[in-house]
Amino acid sequence: MRIGIDIGGTKTDAVIVDDSLVVRQHLRRPTGRGNVAVVDGAERIVRDLLDGVGATTGEVEQIGVGIPGVVDELTGRVRHAVNIGVAELELAAILGARLSIPVVVGNDVNAAALGASHLLDLHVPTAFLNLGTGLAAGLVVDGRVWRGARGGAGEIGHIPVDPSGALCPCGQRGCLETMASGSALARLWPTDAALPAVDLFERAEAGQQNAVAVRETVVTGVASAVRVLLLSTDVETVIIGGGLSNLGERLMRPLRETFERWGRTSPFLDSLDLSSRVRLLPPESPAAALGAALLDLRPLASAI
Amino acid sequence: MRIGIDIGGTKTDAVIVDDSLVVRQHLRRPTGRGNVAVVDGAERIVRDLLDGVGATTGEVEQIGVGIPGVVDELTGRVRHAVNIGVAELELAAILGARLSIPVVVGNDVNAAALGASHLLDLHVPTAFLNLGTGLAAGLVVDGRVWRGARGGAGEIGHIPVDPSGALCPCGQRGCLETMASGSALARLWPTDAALPAVDLFERAEAGQQNAVAVRETVVTGVASAVRVLLLSTDVETVIIGGGLSNLGERLMRPLRETFERWGRTSPFLDSLDLSSRVRLLPPESPAAALGAALLDLRPLASAI
Repeated sequence: MRIGIDIGGTKTDAVIVDDSLVVRQHLRRPTGRGNVAVVDGAERIVRDLLDGVGATTGEVEQIGVGIPGVVDELTGRVRHAVNIGVAELELAAILGARLSIPVVVGNDVNAAALGASHLLDLHVPTAFLNLGTGLAAGLVVDGRVWRGARGGAGEIGHIPVDPSGALCPCGQRGCLETMASGSALARLWPTDAALPAVDLFERAEAGQQNAVAVRETVVTGVASAVRVLLLSTDVETVIIGGGLSNLGERLMRPLRETFERWGRTSPFLDSLDLSSRVRLLPPESPAAALGAALLDLRPLASAI
Repeated sequence: MRIGIDIGGTKTDAVIVDDSLVVRQHLRRPTGRGNVAVVDGAERIVRDLLDGVGATTGEVEQIGVGIPGVVDELTGRVRHAVNIGVAELELAAILGARLSIPVVVGNDVNAAALGASHLLDLHVPTAFLNLGTGLAAGLVVDGRVWRGARGGAGEIGHIPVDPSGALCPCGQRGCLETMASGSALARLWPTDAALPAVDLFERAEAGQQNAVAVRETVVTGVASAVRVLLLSTDVETVIIGGGLSNLGERLMRPLRETFERWGRTSPFLDSLDLSSRVRLLPPESPAAALGAALLDLRPLASAI
């Protein structure tokens, strides 16, 4: 058996899968902040998964962890995971020692890409576009994560697409992340609503003018991110996930309308078949945790 | 031995290489226009290469041809090679029958990418950024061309980076190709000079104000194309080739200055080490012809 854990900014997902990669159990909990809470939480969720399926640590081949921040995949060290209060943490070493199970650690978006591609049973080059607090993509080719030469493949959130766009915390202007991400929404649509994205899209559907304009920015950002992915990497499919993907059809309908509008003025774009190449990650699916469980099913190449 | 032919808009390059991939002879000629001239020219240059090294057709394992337009690599059919007056041509079948040598045909930019990566002896993921009449890139990973799912990987010329940019023939606005390509130059810097790019850069160096502004657009376009490639695919190295690359240091100096300026306001970009990851294709090197000779050294995967 294998265990996969996705440690997100707010919640932690964990799954235990059997040798056929079928999910035997899935647990979801709030993520603690800081090194101690993160490690304790990961240990606890592993032990609870094992109790749930009546297994022992000795039956687990490995644990994969997907986590935000800068991950050194060779050592399993995590740095700059700001959202969860972790400056530096030897996650693989510490968690592995506590449980006596080998632990591999990977970037959360890459793990989600692998899991999403597996969940949707895609056997084509695939990008997973994560619309979370930030915007980033993970790439999967031939069933493996393509990390790139320096681990930065898919970092499209900081590609600027408008010289007069908003200033991005990265120091550039008009980055895709300033248009279509949780942080973009917080800036563009300040609200006390429990679900700011739902609030925005509902008001836009009701015709509230400023909401329509902000939705246009967000949807154009998503569409532009898909265009960048298809034109640079030519993956067959882009799977949209992350918090904003919970908007479901609310997001997909205007997204398809945007692609259709683009196609009417650009035969070139029309020929790319954008709409049919975008899929939504099913809501609540534990893609990232599942992907974490699969993290090293194949040897890591430096390049792909 | 293998023969590689690069049929460009103005000139045709051809090389014959031995089994160690060493170039035995290199010929360069003007390209004819239309199906008959293209096929006759290819046959002629092959026979002249063979004469030059004293070899017969029977000693040639295969001929690879790199050509602009839409190439069906399975059949060797070329369509829409507008620059050379070819609407549709069964190039592999016809040339192969005339010479009794197997012929494979590939996209010219992909061939150049393969040849450039080989010439510079790079064993890392590499992009070849072709600044020709258009702007496009070819990607090489693990010594093979990465074509993408639909053969469109590296088509970054039609990624828009400025909503208020120039209208592109593709129907979009502000595409990278409208900033940094031969066609962009023709629009931005109309001149009777024999070498428009050299004219522009010389005048810019002399401080002519409108030339400085146009050069700024061109260089920003090149820099933006490099940024798109590194952030989406995370290749280790971008090799700049195509007509504009003949500007050499004239282009590279302001390009590095642009990266440095970007790095001063964006620690994120600074960390990407842009300047050190860009190389210039040595002028007059027969990269595309060499790459054409290598075109199928490894089996073509659909994805990569």
